[in-house]
Amino acid sequence: MKDALWAAIAATLRAEIAAGHYRPGDRLPTEAALSARFGVNRHTVRHALSALAEAGLVHSRRGSGVFVAQRPTDYPLGRRVRFHENLLAAGHTPSRRISRIETRPGDAEEARALRLRAGDPVHVVEGVSLSDDQPIAAFRSVFPAARFPDLPGALRETQSITRALAALGLADYTRSETRITAQLADPVLALALTVRPGAPVLRTVALNVDPKGLPVEHGQTWFAGERVTLTVADQA
Amino acid sequence: MKDALWAAIAATLRAEIAAGHYRPGDRLPTEAALSARFGVNRHTVRHALSALAEAGLVHSRRGSGVFVAQRPTDYPLGRRVRFHENLLAAGHTPSRRISRIETRPGDAEEARALRLRAGDPVHVVEGVSLSDDQPIAAFRSVFPAARFPDLPGALRETQSITRALAALGLADYTRSETRITAQLADPVLALALTVRPGAPVLRTVALNVDPKGLPVEHGQTWFAGERVTLTVADQA
Repeated sequence: MKDALWAAIAATLRAEIAAGHYRPGDRLPTEAALSARFGVNRHTVRHALSALAEAGLVHSRRGSGVFVAQRPTDYPLGRRVRFHENLLAAGHTPSRRISRIETRPGDAEEARALRLRAGDPVHVVEGVSLSDDQPIAAFRSVFPAARFPDLPGALRETQSITRALAALGLADYTRSETRITAQLADPVLALALTVRPGAPVLRTVALNVDPKGLPVEHGQTWFAGERVTLTVADQA
Repeated sequence: MKDALWAAIAATLRAEIAAGHYRPGDRLPTEAALSARFGVNRHTVRHALSALAEAGLVHSRRGSGVFVAQRPTDYPLGRRVRFHENLLAAGHTPSRRISRIETRPGDAEEARALRLRAGDPVHVVEGVSLSDDQPIAAFRSVFPAARFPDLPGALRETQSITRALAALGLADYTRSETRITAQLADPVLALALTVRPGAPVLRTVALNVDPKGLPVEHGQTWFAGERVTLTVADQA
């Protein structure tokens, strides 16, 4: 009977979220308020809420409550994938946090991807992309340092890879291929994306090339699977 | 110290798989043989093997042992996505098992996708796609029944959606959009894909249209995330 109770409460809240009574970003009533409303103990309420969290419909923020998850953001995998433009076009407020800029010798895989010799210097740029202040993706990009010696400074100034490359004379680049896999968030990635460890993640690996076809950026992105839908348009 | 032991054994086996000593599809030595080789008890070996299974590097088949996982199959999300051609081109042996063909009224979502009225009849086709006898994807496609009244018979005969549609006069159709999300395998999906419940899954939703742009197939596919890499080529 306990089983039936928490499932019925979860179904009721799910229907209310679907109907828009609670909207993305809204805080749900407290556990105490929900206990009172449904006439059940807090354990049963918690069970219902964790079922909704498992399904990606709500997420809890430590100390501040349980919130309705944002609806998945469409992220078009187009010829030019520009984070800001994509999100603005979809009515979201994009932002980006760069957490690490480091120059070091490239490893074998990075050298192969960027067509360098192993040991040639690369810039490594890591950070998180947010939509309406919620992390939607963690990224790590690697650039050939000899070609863009001033990239770290330009990135610190512009906080934008596209603008930094433009400032360095590369106004136009295109994506040559994107490879998409699914994986589970490990604890480090879960922390960066504010998802639970084991949550589903869409990982893309992409290579950006200049107009002559030379690699300029090898990028990996880990999207929070419950917050993003990658879309591929009609391919001619 | 036990911790260090199983992790060291897992690292050794991982390196041997990476180096090609054990190749995709190979059976690893038995637990007894590994216990003897590393001078540890079976519990420690089992711990190492389950770490490798968690990482998707090996999988166990009941009663027959532990096998090195196939390398992820590239699956191009092109304009015409044809399962057989894609896999053959990549050197794999493709097959398809259709498990359900049913005609029933479409629900609201199916009707919207296929531009029908709710309640108009649809054919529902479910099954599993395999590569080298390993399931790589479960699929569910919905077709407008009024347009293709003889589809169930043609499917039973050809066991191929492409060939069945061609036999019914639709030789050419194209994919108009693909939407990609990540999710965790629930127990039913895990059984169909022979993955563990909770394993990462790539879900695609696609609409195929005829040369006039009319929807002919609304398809969902759930790819085993550790066995498939979806690829998107340069978009012009």
